[in-house]
Amino acid sequence: MKNKIVVMASGEGTTFQEIYQACSYGRINAEVVALISDRLDSGAVVKAGKLNVPVIHYSLTKKEIIIRELEKLKPDLIVLAGFLKILPEEFIDNFAGKIVNTHPSLLPCFGGKGMYGINVQHAVLKSGTKVTGCTIHLVDKDVDHGPIIAQETVPVLSTDTPESLQIRVHSVELGLYVDAISTLLKFDHTIVGNRVKFLNQFSL
Amino acid sequence: MKNKIVVMASGEGTTFQEIYQACSYGRINAEVVALISDRLDSGAVVKAGKLNVPVIHYSLTKKEIIIRELEKLKPDLIVLAGFLKILPEEFIDNFAGKIVNTHPSLLPCFGGKGMYGINVQHAVLKSGTKVTGCTIHLVDKDVDHGPIIAQETVPVLSTDTPESLQIRVHSVELGLYVDAISTLLKFDHTIVGNRVKFLNQFSL
Repeated sequence: MKNKIVVMASGEGTTFQEIYQACSYGRINAEVVALISDRLDSGAVVKAGKLNVPVIHYSLTKKEIIIRELEKLKPDLIVLAGFLKILPEEFIDNFAGKIVNTHPSLLPCFGGKGMYGINVQHAVLKSGTKVTGCTIHLVDKDVDHGPIIAQETVPVLSTDTPESLQIRVHSVELGLYVDAISTLLKFDHTIVGNRVKFLNQFSL
Repeated sequence: MKNKIVVMASGEGTTFQEIYQACSYGRINAEVVALISDRLDSGAVVKAGKLNVPVIHYSLTKKEIIIRELEKLKPDLIVLAGFLKILPEEFIDNFAGKIVNTHPSLLPCFGGKGMYGINVQHAVLKSGTKVTGCTIHLVDKDVDHGPIIAQETVPVLSTDTPESLQIRVHSVELGLYVDAISTLLKFDHTIVGNRVKFLNQFSL
C-alpha cells in the first residue's frame, strides 16, 4: 500500500516539486495528499494547483483546524520543504517522530535562530570553513535540533559566493532528502543518541 | 636554508614527536629548535630530553622572559601541539601570523571554551552528527577562531565511543598538521575571509 505524505512549504516549491516527482516515479513509495502553506501566493501553492494537490492554508489562528484536517488525512510523514514558520509545540506533539526537515548545513553547525536560506551560507563563508553540507532530521521542539537521519558534505570553494554555495548545497540536499524520505517510509527505525537508527542496520 | 620551528605542548607529546620526525625525514623543511611546555613532568618534555631538543618552561609569570627567548630564537613558526594554556594577547601580538594550532573538529563547530581533548568528542557524539573532522588554523585572539589553513572530514560511526572517535580523528589530524606546516613554510600566503590563501594558488 502507498504511504501518505503531506508537504509544508512557504517558498518557490522546488523541494515540494522534487518530492512530488520522486513519488510519481516510484522513487518514494508514497502519494503527496496535501500541501500546507502559510503563503497562498507562493510558488509552492501555484505548483500544487497545477499538480492537483489539495492545498491547506496554514495560520496560527487555524492551528486546531489544521491538526484536525491532518488527523483525518493520517499522513505517514509530514515533510517540511522550506516552511519558514516555527511549528507550535502542540503540532509537533501530535505528530511526534513523523515530521522531517532539511537544513542546508552540517548541523549542529550553522543552525538555530535566524539560520535559514541565504543567511546560512553567509555565515558559512564568514567562518572560513572549507567543509559544509546538509542535514535531514526529524523535528523536535528545538529549532534545527531533532534526531539526524542523513548528512552529506559539500566543499566550500575559495571562489564561492553565498549564492553559488546555496545552489551547490541545494542540489545535494534534494537528492539526500528524497533518499531519506524513501528510507524512513520503507524501514522501521528508532532513535539512538540523537540519530535515527534503521532497525535493519541499513545506514544513510 | 632550514626553517626554525618551536613546538608548544602540555601532554604526552605525540604530536610533538610526529612533527620532530617529519622534520628529520625532510617532510617538513625545518628544525625543531625548542619545546615550550607548562608541565615539566609531561611526556612531551621527557621526549624532548631524549631527542636533545631544548625545553623552555612556560608560566605566565615568566611571560616576558619567554617572549625574549623566542625573539632570540627567531622561529619561522610556533606550533601548538596540545598546549592547554590560553596564550596571552601580548604573546599572540608578538608572533602574529606565525602561531599555528590544530583542533579535533570541523571549526567553527565544537570549538571555543571547554572544547578540548575528549570533551570535543563527547559533544560531537551527543549532537548526533555523522560528520566530524579536524582543523588546522592560525591563532588569533579568539579561542579556536583564527584563519583556517586546512580541514579534513572523519565519519562518526554509530559504534563510536568518544575514545574511538578521538583516536580516528587524531590519526587524520597528525598527517594534515604535518602537511599544513610544510606548506606554510614553503609557500607565501595571505589571509582572505578567515582563510589562509597560498599565493601560488596551491590549496590545502
